[in-house]
Amino acid sequence: MEKYVVVLAAGKGTRMKSKLYKVLHKVCGKTMVEHVVGAASALKPEKIVTIVGHGAEDVEKVLKGKSEFAFQEQQLGTGHAVMQAQAQLEGLDGATLVVTGDTPLFTSETFAKLFAYHEEEGNAATVLTAEAPNPFGYGRIIRDDQGNVLRIVEQKDGNPEELKVKEINTGVFCFDNKKLWEALKQIGNDNAQGEYYITDVIEILRKQGDKVGAYKMPDFSESLGVNDRVALAEATRIMQARINKKHMEDGVTFIDPATAYIDAGVKIGNDTVIEGCVTIKGNTEIGSDCLITSGSRIIDSKIGNGVTVTSSTLEEAQMDDNTDVGPNSHLRPKAVIRKGAHLGNFVEVKKAEIGENTKVGHLTYVGDATLGKDINVGCGTIFSNFDGVKKFHTNVGDKSFIGAGSTLIAPINVADHAFVAADSTITKDVGRYEMAIARGRQVNKEDYWHKLPLSESDDWK
Amino acid sequence: MEKYVVVLAAGKGTRMKSKLYKVLHKVCGKTMVEHVVGAASALKPEKIVTIVGHGAEDVEKVLKGKSEFAFQEQQLGTGHAVMQAQAQLEGLDGATLVVTGDTPLFTSETFAKLFAYHEEEGNAATVLTAEAPNPFGYGRIIRDDQGNVLRIVEQKDGNPEELKVKEINTGVFCFDNKKLWEALKQIGNDNAQGEYYITDVIEILRKQGDKVGAYKMPDFSESLGVNDRVALAEATRIMQARINKKHMEDGVTFIDPATAYIDAGVKIGNDTVIEGCVTIKGNTEIGSDCLITSGSRIIDSKIGNGVTVTSSTLEEAQMDDNTDVGPNSHLRPKAVIRKGAHLGNFVEVKKAEIGENTKVGHLTYVGDATLGKDINVGCGTIFSNFDGVKKFHTNVGDKSFIGAGSTLIAPINVADHAFVAADSTITKDVGRYEMAIARGRQVNKEDYWHKLPLSESDDWK
Amino acid sequence: MEKYVVVLAAGKGTRMKSKLYKVLHKVCGKTMVEHVVGAASALKPEKIVTIVGHGAEDVEKVLKGKSEFAFQEQQLGTGHAVMQAQAQLEGLDGATLVVTGDTPLFTSETFAKLFAYHEEEGNAATVLTAEAPNPFGYGRIIRDDQGNVLRIVEQKDGNPEELKVKEINTGVFCFDNKKLWEALKQIGNDNAQGEYYITDVIEILRKQGDKVGAYKMPDFSESLGVNDRVALAEATRIMQARINKKHMEDGVTFIDPATAYIDAGVKIGNDTVIEGCVTIKGNTEIGSDCLITSGSRIIDSKIGNGVTVTSSTLEEAQMDDNTDVGPNSHLRPKAVIRKGAHLGNFVEVKKAEIGENTKVGHLTYVGDATLGKDINVGCGTIFSNFDGVKKFHTNVGDKSFIGAGSTLIAPINVADHAFVAADSTITKDVGRYEMAIARGRQVNKEDYWHKLPLSESDDWK
Repeated sequence: MEKYVVVLAAGKGTRMKSKLYKVLHKVCGKTMVEHVVGAASALKPEKIVTIVGHGAEDVEKVLKGKSEFAFQEQQLGTGHAVMQAQAQLEGLDGATLVVTGDTPLFTSETFAKLFAYHEEEGNAATVLTAEAPNPFGYGRIIRDDQGNVLRIVEQKDGNPEELKVKEINTGVFCFDNKKLWEALKQIGNDNAQGEYYITDVIEILRKQGDKVGAYKMPDFSESLGVNDRVALAEATRIMQARINKKHMEDGVTFIDPATAYIDAGVKIGNDTVIEGCVTIKGNTEIGSDCLITSGSRIIDSKIGNGVTVTSSTLEEAQMDDNTDVGPNSHLRPKAVIRKGAHLGNFVEVKKAEIGENTKVGHLTYVGDATLGKDINVGCGTIFSNFDGVKKFHTNVGDKSFIGAGSTLIAPINVADHAFVAADSTITKDVGRYEMAIARGRQVNKEDYWHKLPLSESDDWK
Repeated sequence: MEKYVVVLAAGKGTRMKSKLYKVLHKVCGKTMVEHVVGAASALKPEKIVTIVGHGAEDVEKVLKGKSEFAFQEQQLGTGHAVMQAQAQLEGLDGATLVVTGDTPLFTSETFAKLFAYHEEEGNAATVLTAEAPNPFGYGRIIRDDQGNVLRIVEQKDGNPEELKVKEINTGVFCFDNKKLWEALKQIGNDNAQGEYYITDVIEILRKQGDKVGAYKMPDFSESLGVNDRVALAEATRIMQARINKKHMEDGVTFIDPATAYIDAGVKIGNDTVIEGCVTIKGNTEIGSDCLITSGSRIIDSKIGNGVTVTSSTLEEAQMDDNTDVGPNSHLRPKAVIRKGAHLGNFVEVKKAEIGENTKVGHLTYVGDATLGKDINVGCGTIFSNFDGVKKFHTNVGDKSFIGAGSTLIAPINVADHAFVAADSTITKDVGRYEMAIARGRQVNKEDYWHKLPLSESDDWK
Repeated sequence: MEKYVVVLAAGKGTRMKSKLYKVLHKVCGKTMVEHVVGAASALKPEKIVTIVGHGAEDVEKVLKGKSEFAFQEQQLGTGHAVMQAQAQLEGLDGATLVVTGDTPLFTSETFAKLFAYHEEEGNAATVLTAEAPNPFGYGRIIRDDQGNVLRIVEQKDGNPEELKVKEINTGVFCFDNKKLWEALKQIGNDNAQGEYYITDVIEILRKQGDKVGAYKMPDFSESLGVNDRVALAEATRIMQARINKKHMEDGVTFIDPATAYIDAGVKIGNDTVIEGCVTIKGNTEIGSDCLITSGSRIIDSKIGNGVTVTSSTLEEAQMDDNTDVGPNSHLRPKAVIRKGAHLGNFVEVKKAEIGENTKVGHLTYVGDATLGKDINVGCGTIFSNFDGVKKFHTNVGDKSFIGAGSTLIAPINVADHAFVAADSTITKDVGRYEMAIARGRQVNKEDYWHKLPLSESDDWK
């Protein structure tokens, strides 16, 4: 059976109170509409058509290459929205899934089961339903004795018996595509809102004798629709729990999965420990046997095996096996930390390679530099890379020693086995085996203290 | 109808195990008694009288200007506590709300509804009640067929039928003020504890034929009374959820509202994103379109629109529009960051203005200084403001360049378009277009390495 | 009655997907098997025998001195596991508790009650049971009218009536020791798995007319067995809530107990406030009236009274009364901060003592040093302790002043009341009342700016 998907994504979402188009709000690092289209794509449908309205360009940007688009100029209801896909879908053989772009939690498994059930039953239309713990406000599914769907009764229209029903309409439908397009021509907007409703198609099909069924999904929470930021936070919580559960099943230890904010798509190896209060975003991969402590924030970075990240921030950085960093350090884009290297606290690395087993212990900025192996970079070292006009590069050779408090003013080449004396200002290259020193000579002046307007018992302010 | 409020705040709270007076423990940044008085004040009552006991001064301090006070020398029960307000309230026309100071979650809406119900029903007394999921331990409300309150039955006194009742006494009452004071003269302390109970007033009024009713509030959780730190944490959780829900409804995105610790009174603009693990306290205002990342801690600060705070600490600081800071930076009191300025990592600013579009990238302390526009402050710059006796100020003009590793020893004036060479110690003013340099000259000594007691393969420790 | 304990700890735990032996996974800082053995030890049993399998050495290491061991070469079921303790236990008078090592939440109170009930009832065997909200998957306890246990019915074997039973087998048993060993000889492995089950002992005892009872514990959550990392996280959550509740009852304020990650065994004084997003591990003690803010991470440290730790990391450090540190500072092993000392932001202290009332405000590394009282250490000071070969020590006397940006190259002795000028490189001792200065002399070069290839309107990149 050919499969088609229509994603309704034209709603403005006024209750979001946002300048941003509703379906572009993010859940675990991905826009809601990407979640929906992603789940649908996994079924490899012939076409996905996303119905967009105002702000269409932004939606088209995030879905580029993943969906076709149809433009809905005016918001005249869900039925009207589907009609906009006429050019792409009318007359094709197969089944069409209709889903809204603000329901980020549906899984591809659920969509697959809906299609399968729809086909098995030979339905003209199949409603995706769920059992709501508290069904108030939802459309209720009224079935006959055979389990066929008779109608969907809205809250305001239901009699007491009908309102007791806990099976609700999730707003997702699967249609025989040809019958869908025939029925769409018959729906009207003769209602209080003056809108065209997709649910009217159900009624029309049933009345003309077509078989209408319902597939009840087991997990109600998947159907959560996001209309405001309270629901957005709830969707995020559920999605995050799902992501972290998968990592746990794969052998990752979480001290507190509730506060591990990990984007969909992040990879983590087994026996890695993720503490609470950790953020891991984007295209990040973390190996096995790592420890990521609380307060860490890792974005688009590659981390090998046996790495410890202590309360540090990584952005587009790379840490090879058995390295460590932190606490309170910052690896910026193009920081590459080679095997066994150690970065301590208050260290910033940008566009620089730190060679194997090299140590950068404290209060240091390494920018635009290539450091070799087995180097010791002392505390408070600055790789000064900018002269006010251009940025320059510094190289430091293997086994060199950079004394604490030194400033290397790029461009500088420090050879292997070179030595920079503490607190030196390095403006010229340092050769192999050389020691470079550049600092003021100390003078002690006697009895200075008594020249200060202080008594001996005064405290420093 | 004139309104009066009596807040019972004299209890010691031994189960808190605290040196601090019970009602002074804080929930979301405000003492419990301030929450109660705040909710009551919104009704604009004629008088609020807070009954204080030992430690009265501290309570009077936090409520200064918001409440009158009456002193309860001995703790002889809730009825006795109310009696202390005799001088302020006896004989006045109107209705009196009696509430304890350890119930921080009551809203002004609930108090308003209680007063309104009390007046509509023409009651002599109205009990504020709620439906408790598990009523064990609470006083149960026993009503007659007309819904009038017959009595309040304590857990230990109830028969099995009475104990099935889930409507409980929240401990809040509304009284006809004149009748209250007449009845208070009749209550005794002939009970196991030897205390005077305010609930006895209910009994007395009913027996003398006055109408006693109950107003059942819909949200039981509002009535939580705090007697220990477990309940204090629970009250904080509920209050925090309420605060954050309001922000979400107003258009603020929360990655995890459960770990956004935001004081009552903080203002946040729409389309601002608050990540998890964020603390925002006191008199803080944050504009629209900001990003506040995990690990940030913001106290009494003003933040404009389009600002990014990455894992940084702000105290009494100001960040104007389109500025950014972090990660791991610290803005201290009187730090003022002008439009478009950039502060990177490990930057501390205190009592200093950073001009528009000025960049302070890394590992820098700016204290007691005024920086103009479009300045570049290099890594590791220190504004040395203290000579052991006094603090001094530094000025840096527009478009100046402060090379990395420099120390400016205040008082210093650096003019516009001035240039400080990297790693210089600046002790004198630098004029317009001038370049100042002050550092040691580099000397390289050959073959130093082999004088070290190291083999070439030795590792730095 | 003599008490014995058998801890079954030989399971590999394949669903953990770990290189680590299952019972060695940690919950709140202690391995699961240590929790179990710890709870059992509190009863002072005659013997604890832990049954270990592959990876035995690691288990024996963590339980050294707390348990005897028996080796189970092949995993042939729970009954077979117990049999391995034959040499240690067979024939002894008394009662034997059998418990698995992957149930870290059982309390010693529960074990004590089980033993007591077992003895009072004169049972041959007593099953520890609990009421499961959702009993699916558990063995159900089938009792007769007298409450005697008839049998334990597994999920797959139960009839509908039996499966309605909510009382489940927790997997913990108490046996008359002699009867246990007699019965163990009779159990077979004639089942689908070919394993020997300890539950068969129950059946055997009952059939031979011995009394078999069940003690139902009130808190089902204690019985949680950990088979995967999802359950490990859940066990951690429950254990953490238990630890934090105890601290709250003792007078510690938690802003959010759900995100205060505090190891079992940490001590905290009353009126200390622990904010959310805090980690406190190992052998840490914190006094009264402290504030530990969000983002702090404290390991194996001793903190006095009235101390403020703001978003900082402490490891094997000591902070005496009325000190403060942070935000974003790092106290490393052997950092000792004396009364009243102040450490500000971006400060690292390692193997150093900071004397009373001494201030180390910012961006400073103090390593291998002894600082006296009432010293002011300026911003950006580096205690350079390593010359490439050895580490050296620095001493600074009372009331001395270390100017900002200074580097002290150890070994150095700075006397009392000495003064180091800002930005000096100190290579020689500084005497009492002396002022030491060592820095370049400033030269200003005119019109430098116009030699740069920049127009006046160019921006720094």
